[in-house]
Amino acid sequence: MKNILIASTSTIHGSGYLEYILDELAMFFKDTQEILFIPYARPSGISHDNYTKTAQTAFSKINKKVNGIHTYENPVIAIEKAKGIFVGGGNTFVLIHMLYKNGLIGVLNKTVTNGTPYLGTSAGSNICGLNIKTTNDMPIVYPPSFDALKLVPFNINPHFLEPESNSKHMGESRETRIKEFHKFNTQPVVGLREGSWLHVKSDAITLRGNLTARIFEVNKTPYEIDPEIDISHLK
Amino acid sequence: MKNILIASTSTIHGSGYLEYILDELAMFFKDTQEILFIPYARPSGISHDNYTKTAQTAFSKINKKVNGIHTYENPVIAIEKAKGIFVGGGNTFVLIHMLYKNGLIGVLNKTVTNGTPYLGTSAGSNICGLNIKTTNDMPIVYPPSFDALKLVPFNINPHFLEPESNSKHMGESRETRIKEFHKFNTQPVVGLREGSWLHVKSDAITLRGNLTARIFEVNKTPYEIDPEIDISHLK
Repeated sequence: MKNILIASTSTIHGSGYLEYILDELAMFFKDTQEILFIPYARPSGISHDNYTKTAQTAFSKINKKVNGIHTYENPVIAIEKAKGIFVGGGNTFVLIHMLYKNGLIGVLNKTVTNGTPYLGTSAGSNICGLNIKTTNDMPIVYPPSFDALKLVPFNINPHFLEPESNSKHMGESRETRIKEFHKFNTQPVVGLREGSWLHVKSDAITLRGNLTARIFEVNKTPYEIDPEIDISHLK
Repeated sequence: MKNILIASTSTIHGSGYLEYILDELAMFFKDTQEILFIPYARPSGISHDNYTKTAQTAFSKINKKVNGIHTYENPVIAIEKAKGIFVGGGNTFVLIHMLYKNGLIGVLNKTVTNGTPYLGTSAGSNICGLNIKTTNDMPIVYPPSFDALKLVPFNINPHFLEPESNSKHMGESRETRIKEFHKFNTQPVVGLREGSWLHVKSDAITLRGNLTARIFEVNKTPYEIDPEIDISHLK
């Protein structure tokens, strides 16, 4: 039975790493004292060790031990044996490239589908979708595929935000980018604002946090959904 | 002898399509009345025909005829015979995917290296660099490679901008993204602000327009260069 938290961000403005969601995480990971951390997305290019320390500092507050997957001889077995998994944010291309390189896409999908609790933030949430084609990240490495874990039947756009109303910048808004995506792809996209997350529990997929989320379906006007709404019908 | 304009954007705030650079383009394309337009980047997913009309409307003001490459039976021959080439902006992934699909990377590189004037804006500028790994665009299609035309010995970041100083958004700034790029890649990146362009003329590469550009070299503090500075030493 799937049990997945798909969070827009690890950190909200003016708050510490994972601080806004720690109470939720204490409940979510209540059945394990140890969490397998996948630090491959390397935000700002930091090392796997340093990123794991950041995660450990946050999880110490709810008495969890964090083990970086890079410290295991066999990462496939590490995932199979994990009682809880956290995939942190950073660069989605770097993350998915490492998952392919280490042969972890299949085992991650299987293990999480079978019920191991999975927390993703930002890039770690992006990869829960059908593919990474709605990431906001710069494509700094070329991965063997854009296909992702397919744990939900749509795509995720984390850190979703509206355009700056007074901006003079001519780059595309997030909404324009997702509309372009739908010229070439048909799956729905869930725009998750910072502070929101999806909770996948068995067949239910519920929006959590205090904010609405923006849903993009091909050939439809985008619309908002409220917290506690189930969106498992989207596909 | 190379003759290339690499523009950050087609359009600056409060001005029409290509309007800010039309006088320059009249000079740049002075030896031809016809321009081959490559509309593959499809901004907002518009059709090749409609995008070509947009380009034609602008170029009509300097008495040039615009021919969309999609109207030719053989796009390779269209490029070889062109007297001037314009690759418009839109989505860099869609653009490079179509160039690979139609087998045009090699012939574009050769034709432009041999002296056919080439104008790129935004995505059309991105592809002048070594690869597209510093595009700002959403990866809405999976291209067979991120390698680009390699017409200059560095990468381009168009629409370059500073972070919003009062933003509460936790997504990465442009500068953070380029720093992440340099954890995995070594070539310099030229951050071109909207209204700036590079003019490649034989071996010289000169910044043009009224604004400075920001240069990112691996293991160096980023720095600004002034207009009229030659940056052909960057590699």
